[in-house]
Amino acid sequence: MPVVTVDWLAGRTPQQKSDLVKAITQAFVSIAKVSDDQVWIVFRDVPRTDWAMGGKLLSPPSEKS
Amino acid sequence: MPVVTVDWLAGRTPQQKSDLVKAITQAFVSIAKVSDDQVWIVFRDVPRTDWAMGGKLLSPPSEKS
Amino acid sequence: MPVVTVDWLAGRTPQQKSDLVKAITQAFVSIAKVSDDQVWIVFRDVPRTDWAMGGKLLSPPSEKS
Amino acid sequence: MPVVTVDWLAGRTPQQKSDLVKAITQAFVSIAKVSDDQVWIVFRDVPRTDWAMGGKLLSPPSEKS
Amino acid sequence: MPVVTVDWLAGRTPQQKSDLVKAITQAFVSIAKVSDDQVWIVFRDVPRTDWAMGGKLLSPPSEKS
Amino acid sequence: MPVVTVDWLAGRTPQQKSDLVKAITQAFVSIAKVSDDQVWIVFRDVPRTDWAMGGKLLSPPSEKS
Repeated sequence: MPVVTVDWLAGRTPQQKSDLVKAITQAFVSIAKVSDDQVWIVFRDVPRTDWAMGGKLLSPPSEKS
Repeated sequence: MPVVTVDWLAGRTPQQKSDLVKAITQAFVSIAKVSDDQVWIVFRDVPRTDWAMGGKLLSPPSEKS
Repeated sequence: MPVVTVDWLAGRTPQQKSDLVKAITQAFVSIAKVSDDQVWIVFRDVPRTDWAMGGKLLSPPSEKS
Repeated sequence: MPVVTVDWLAGRTPQQKSDLVKAITQAFVSIAKVSDDQVWIVFRDVPRTDWAMGGKLLSPPSEKS
Repeated sequence: MPVVTVDWLAGRTPQQKSDLVKAITQAFVSIAKVSDDQVWIVFRDVPRTDWAMGGKLLSPPSEKS
Repeated sequence: MPVVTVDWLAGRTPQQKSDLVKAITQAFVSIAKVSDDQVWIVFRDVPRTDWAMGGKLLSPPSEKS
């Protein structure tokens, strides 16, 4: 029954997502005793222009001098 | 005051979204007694490469033999 | 496949939630052609101390004169 | 940098959450090459009165005859 | 430690996002006493075809007469 | 029109939330040119037993020797 949402920076490959899906699903099946078809995982790739840490966007607008 | 978020697979038409908006808003107005301008609905279309069930992305990376 | 999330103020009754679930699920089945067991709906009741509009919490901390 | 959110039914034990955290974090470190302190995981336990599938809340309001 | 998510209509400029990031981060640092690198902010730009208020999508499908 | 969601650890006071609401709303009004009644802010206080960083829950289950 878990809905697992991954908000992260865009840039990972389909293969990495696929491998993560397998590992995360397996963790829920073995630890939380849910059946694998009940594990829904959604990736939300966020562009660097839309993610900020430390008061700055990771890709800030260009500054003019 | 409800914020209704719909995370689902991309692919539905604007007309389907429009019809859902009408039906969902009407349900909140008649059942929960909120005014319709207080019902905010957001669709988040997720590509098949970013949604997994049963341990697999719906569009997995191509496998090489 | 839709995950429908309802963020709203706490206070509605179980019966209202139940009626909304029926109406929303039926809308997805008839309009978006999904099977009803694929419609997951989650209510998140938010207390008035945690929801703000217009720059004020709906239940603000008491002001002292 | 991933924020991993787990929406699921309340009822799992602290030990299960702890074991899932270890497994999920390890998966991101080994597959997505992020440092473990960059993996934030949030569990949101949902009561059965607030989760619906198939048009019904998992704990529906009692019906009177 | 806050994860601040902004769901809003697409259309604001990178400079506006950058200015908001500065102001929001500063507010958390001064009011909630967190260090600025612990404030993560994510913007989710929603197209007008996916946002509804008052029972209508902001950009509804064109009606034919 | 922004919906601003703050996921963070429980523990801040109502006064801190109130002050943040004022500062965040004011930032959107002055920078993004929205009217203040269109800024909705939701706090989601997460207990330390449900938040993990670095592979560990902030309040892990007690270990027995």
